[in-house]
Amino acid sequence: MRVAIVGATGYGGVELIRLLRQHRQVTEISVFSSSQAEESLTLTYPHLQDVYKGVLQTIDTKVLASAYDVVFLSAPPGVAATLASGLLEGSAAIVDLSGDFRIKEARIYEEWYGQKAAPADLRKQAVYGLSEWNDEEIRTAKLIANPGCYPTAILLGLAPAVKQGAVNMNSLIIDAKTGTTGAGKNPSAVTHFSEMNESMKIYKVNEHKHTPEIEQLLAEWNKGAGPVTFTPHLVPMSRGIMATMYVESTGGLSHDDWLQLYKDAYESHPFVRVRKNGFPATKEVSGSNYCDIYLDYDARTNRVTIVSVIDNLVKGAAGQAIQNANIMNGYKVTEGLDFIPVYP
Amino acid sequence: MRVAIVGATGYGGVELIRLLRQHRQVTEISVFSSSQAEESLTLTYPHLQDVYKGVLQTIDTKVLASAYDVVFLSAPPGVAATLASGLLEGSAAIVDLSGDFRIKEARIYEEWYGQKAAPADLRKQAVYGLSEWNDEEIRTAKLIANPGCYPTAILLGLAPAVKQGAVNMNSLIIDAKTGTTGAGKNPSAVTHFSEMNESMKIYKVNEHKHTPEIEQLLAEWNKGAGPVTFTPHLVPMSRGIMATMYVESTGGLSHDDWLQLYKDAYESHPFVRVRKNGFPATKEVSGSNYCDIYLDYDARTNRVTIVSVIDNLVKGAAGQAIQNANIMNGYKVTEGLDFIPVYP
Amino acid sequence: MRVAIVGATGYGGVELIRLLRQHRQVTEISVFSSSQAEESLTLTYPHLQDVYKGVLQTIDTKVLASAYDVVFLSAPPGVAATLASGLLEGSAAIVDLSGDFRIKEARIYEEWYGQKAAPADLRKQAVYGLSEWNDEEIRTAKLIANPGCYPTAILLGLAPAVKQGAVNMNSLIIDAKTGTTGAGKNPSAVTHFSEMNESMKIYKVNEHKHTPEIEQLLAEWNKGAGPVTFTPHLVPMSRGIMATMYVESTGGLSHDDWLQLYKDAYESHPFVRVRKNGFPATKEVSGSNYCDIYLDYDARTNRVTIVSVIDNLVKGAAGQAIQNANIMNGYKVTEGLDFIPVYP
Amino acid sequence: MRVAIVGATGYGGVELIRLLRQHRQVTEISVFSSSQAEESLTLTYPHLQDVYKGVLQTIDTKVLASAYDVVFLSAPPGVAATLASGLLEGSAAIVDLSGDFRIKEARIYEEWYGQKAAPADLRKQAVYGLSEWNDEEIRTAKLIANPGCYPTAILLGLAPAVKQGAVNMNSLIIDAKTGTTGAGKNPSAVTHFSEMNESMKIYKVNEHKHTPEIEQLLAEWNKGAGPVTFTPHLVPMSRGIMATMYVESTGGLSHDDWLQLYKDAYESHPFVRVRKNGFPATKEVSGSNYCDIYLDYDARTNRVTIVSVIDNLVKGAAGQAIQNANIMNGYKVTEGLDFIPVYP
Repeated sequence: MRVAIVGATGYGGVELIRLLRQHRQVTEISVFSSSQAEESLTLTYPHLQDVYKGVLQTIDTKVLASAYDVVFLSAPPGVAATLASGLLEGSAAIVDLSGDFRIKEARIYEEWYGQKAAPADLRKQAVYGLSEWNDEEIRTAKLIANPGCYPTAILLGLAPAVKQGAVNMNSLIIDAKTGTTGAGKNPSAVTHFSEMNESMKIYKVNEHKHTPEIEQLLAEWNKGAGPVTFTPHLVPMSRGIMATMYVESTGGLSHDDWLQLYKDAYESHPFVRVRKNGFPATKEVSGSNYCDIYLDYDARTNRVTIVSVIDNLVKGAAGQAIQNANIMNGYKVTEGLDFIPVYP
Repeated sequence: MRVAIVGATGYGGVELIRLLRQHRQVTEISVFSSSQAEESLTLTYPHLQDVYKGVLQTIDTKVLASAYDVVFLSAPPGVAATLASGLLEGSAAIVDLSGDFRIKEARIYEEWYGQKAAPADLRKQAVYGLSEWNDEEIRTAKLIANPGCYPTAILLGLAPAVKQGAVNMNSLIIDAKTGTTGAGKNPSAVTHFSEMNESMKIYKVNEHKHTPEIEQLLAEWNKGAGPVTFTPHLVPMSRGIMATMYVESTGGLSHDDWLQLYKDAYESHPFVRVRKNGFPATKEVSGSNYCDIYLDYDARTNRVTIVSVIDNLVKGAAGQAIQNANIMNGYKVTEGLDFIPVYP
Repeated sequence: MRVAIVGATGYGGVELIRLLRQHRQVTEISVFSSSQAEESLTLTYPHLQDVYKGVLQTIDTKVLASAYDVVFLSAPPGVAATLASGLLEGSAAIVDLSGDFRIKEARIYEEWYGQKAAPADLRKQAVYGLSEWNDEEIRTAKLIANPGCYPTAILLGLAPAVKQGAVNMNSLIIDAKTGTTGAGKNPSAVTHFSEMNESMKIYKVNEHKHTPEIEQLLAEWNKGAGPVTFTPHLVPMSRGIMATMYVESTGGLSHDDWLQLYKDAYESHPFVRVRKNGFPATKEVSGSNYCDIYLDYDARTNRVTIVSVIDNLVKGAAGQAIQNANIMNGYKVTEGLDFIPVYP
Repeated sequence: MRVAIVGATGYGGVELIRLLRQHRQVTEISVFSSSQAEESLTLTYPHLQDVYKGVLQTIDTKVLASAYDVVFLSAPPGVAATLASGLLEGSAAIVDLSGDFRIKEARIYEEWYGQKAAPADLRKQAVYGLSEWNDEEIRTAKLIANPGCYPTAILLGLAPAVKQGAVNMNSLIIDAKTGTTGAGKNPSAVTHFSEMNESMKIYKVNEHKHTPEIEQLLAEWNKGAGPVTFTPHLVPMSRGIMATMYVESTGGLSHDDWLQLYKDAYESHPFVRVRKNGFPATKEVSGSNYCDIYLDYDARTNRVTIVSVIDNLVKGAAGQAIQNANIMNGYKVTEGLDFIPVYP
């Protein structure tokens, strides 16, 4: 598998390199950048010295489309929408890590993203790459819209219950917490160490772009789906997402039934671990492609608290992108991703 | 004001010393401990060298009750229940920072705490020291049950809405996040730096002791109060609580109405700041007695997201205890507490 | 004491406000800024809401020089050099927190700072404000060059030994570690949370601007002073400096003699605490004006390891600046600074 | 390669499992524990659920010696000294991660460790496993004394200069900083999150056990070796060691000569990277087996500042242990260790 990464200077791009390095089918990794072409990637990331020697190349869709088997687009918003048509003319499979192709309806995209939606045919063609639930479509896809970090944790946490019709679809409240790498590589006042350290923040309350992405999938899974409340928080750590989800049970299921529902749903999926001995911490999946889930049914309130944790840069970005490339190429789904979490 | 602190070796006790040191009415601060009597407190806390020279004294209720104006009980669960009768025979005002006297019904206390409740007369006599809302009773109280850290942040955040009847009382979901000092001074696997750092945890889901404390107050304020969902999380920071509260609006109020409701409620209360320019971060109240609050009404879901932040050791423990002592003594409520947060 | 702060939007400026708020002699605190004039300071620092209501004013040297008793200059490099002449025509005492007036020789300043030195008469007039050792000159000074954060910790740690002639003056090696607030409020790649967290960095090896400041004082204190090795490091914490200093003993002194030398030197200085029970941690002085020192003499190598810790924003900046203002005004040296460290 | 890990519940043990999982020659990983036999390792480490299914077995030297190709001893001090004789009767290669066999002279071991040294024949037989410099002896060894975390970083940083005779051997000062995992899995007051977070500490000044280990190697490399000053510090991060070393040049070498000396020394060693563009940060080797080195020669003082960084659990423990097992077994030295650092 010859691989190209467009936008390799961001955290998603550099994480792709880290993971693809262990992938036995990968024979080549090339990196592309619009702004830093001709530069060695080690100027930006000295930790790659002597390990990854690629030089950033100018983006050329023809080259990308023909010389590579998989092209990962890890560029800022809007770039993938511009490049995709050209890329699709070639033979390469495309996995886009931005939000350009995730939202099916242009109106909704434009409302939440505040910018022009990608061309309709591209949005239509793109398959939403939630690996565990869309593997059929992913297998034959040419263009993958890789899920956002929050939606990955949240949708994996909600899917079994929502598909089963076990929850009141108007009751969904999602309180999510992320480490700072989710905010990207560019320094800002919000993620300035002196002010982020020893602090907990909340942001984009009721207006985060991942909201329509979550709602779109829920609506596909369950006709009764209403709007969700989704609240992102920033935690003083670099990696990790914990999504704490509150849902009202439609009744009948005991705590053990709930747990069994989840165990059954993910039994054959190696990267989703329904926990046996209690709730997971984010560090327990750090550096790995796992999504760990546990839940508690509370008879007092008839609510279920579902918790799911991921490493936002792995299962929430680069890891799931590779997982999708594996599925598209017919490789073992765990190929190149079979890491034990880095703990502690 | 001559002050005694029982249990001065815990974080609550040492924070009392830090704050009382700036209190202009305090003429004496004595410290007491059952386990480390005769020891200098600087053995446990070297940062007190040359500043606080008190030696830990053996606990003697007669001495405490007669030689001091205020006795702060900052001891482990059950100690206050044992000492209070004796202390109440004297003239000292008592502020208990443990949970011994917070819950009125013995049955509920015993269910959530898993141990015997304090004698009924003590529980009855104790006034719940939520300073901003119970100042009338606090003024004439002899024994204060100082609120828990979580309930302080949560109740200050919910009070205006709940008292106004503006929320569906069966809809209350509280997602709370705390720094590690809430877990106290004893080292444990959970708060071991190597495993707590760069991690986010969730604990005591649907079984935290502060749940009945919150529900008791809500029921006092609003007859329709049902059980709440309350979920505590541990964040890799030492100080700070952020409570994110989700409530269903009973309707009619716009975002601005909601904000005005809160501004009006806390206008005359110097330690509760309804924020003007967006949601607060925990660091913005660190080291201070402030509780900062902001909210957002979401028309899509008809829910209000209310956020309140405190320093768990100040407004959530020692600071509110002193605030209550000020009220009991007729001092200015801000006396000894008028600190600007330590930022950054 | 009417106080003006020029450059109040930086960390030094906002820390001055925090501390001056507790100062009993302060009747007014006004803030000035070249870039954000007319803005409320709470726009930059929401934690000041309802506490400090000052609006940033345009810098006007005439107003500053006449309407205030003390002017703290907490502006970027070069600003103080421009303002000082005008300010000195008035009656206000001036304390400059920048490096503009610290270095006596223009040639040395220009070599290390890479920019033009302040006018010679200003550099000559300025008194170096190392409060504990220069209090005589400070008392009658009109213009104080407040010491850098590193030099404060380092010079307080070296002074007793160097003045006593107890160390080989060519043997001085200083390994210093700072929290990130020393790098200021502007976000940068170096202090971006995602990359600074869970990491330790080293910077400006053998080329940090504080080197000549340290050497200048050592040369004043001891004729044999040679160049020092000074290495700054960045630690993933917001506040705090630890300086670990290695010196070769000229012989004769035992470990106890060494300790006694330090105890004697600082006996009458309330803000320097020679520790009794071992080495200090940075957190044990956090938020306070203390400098804590301890040392160990190693007979195997004939070296002494001297450790000194401060809060870089307090004793290393705003706290010492106020301490100097106290001395200049004849107030008690601890006025407004008598805080117990915020621990934990 | 069938592998046994004795003491798998410590951080060194669990890191061995993480790394060995990626090792292509490893066919079996069994875990042993004296205290938790019969327990699943996932009880202690839930992050291993579904990934590593081994159950802790009772330690039986006969089984260990015969059924495994390599036995990693990752047990507390003293355990290896007891087990080794029995193990050496079998065919397994032994890599001990404790300090039991590192010090050749019993007298020195007992002085610094405060306990009885291992039997003389074992200490004699053990080969010190500093992979890059002792590979000849390691190749034919039966028992490896795997280096301590600090000595690994320090000795790799000093070796080229010391072997070359380029430094005054009485001038060596080592200021080392570690993350908290170096202190192990047992919670303690020192590594309690509330007090370790936002703090920098110093400990065991002039009395750390790794001192004689460093001095022993330096004496092997250079006859003029005197005692070193070695000072360990604790930094609020989980992983990582930075050693800042100060040495006096014997003269003649320029900055570029110094750098070339190091590049030449490590040219053929894939895990030691002499950096090209400045000093490394600890995070730039996190999770990997790299040791990154850079230096600066200062003509003013004639000193060289050498900095070396490692991940204390990888190159400082489990990684180097596997590297040694690779050498003993004739595998490629990078087998199972070829990870890109986890950044950020």
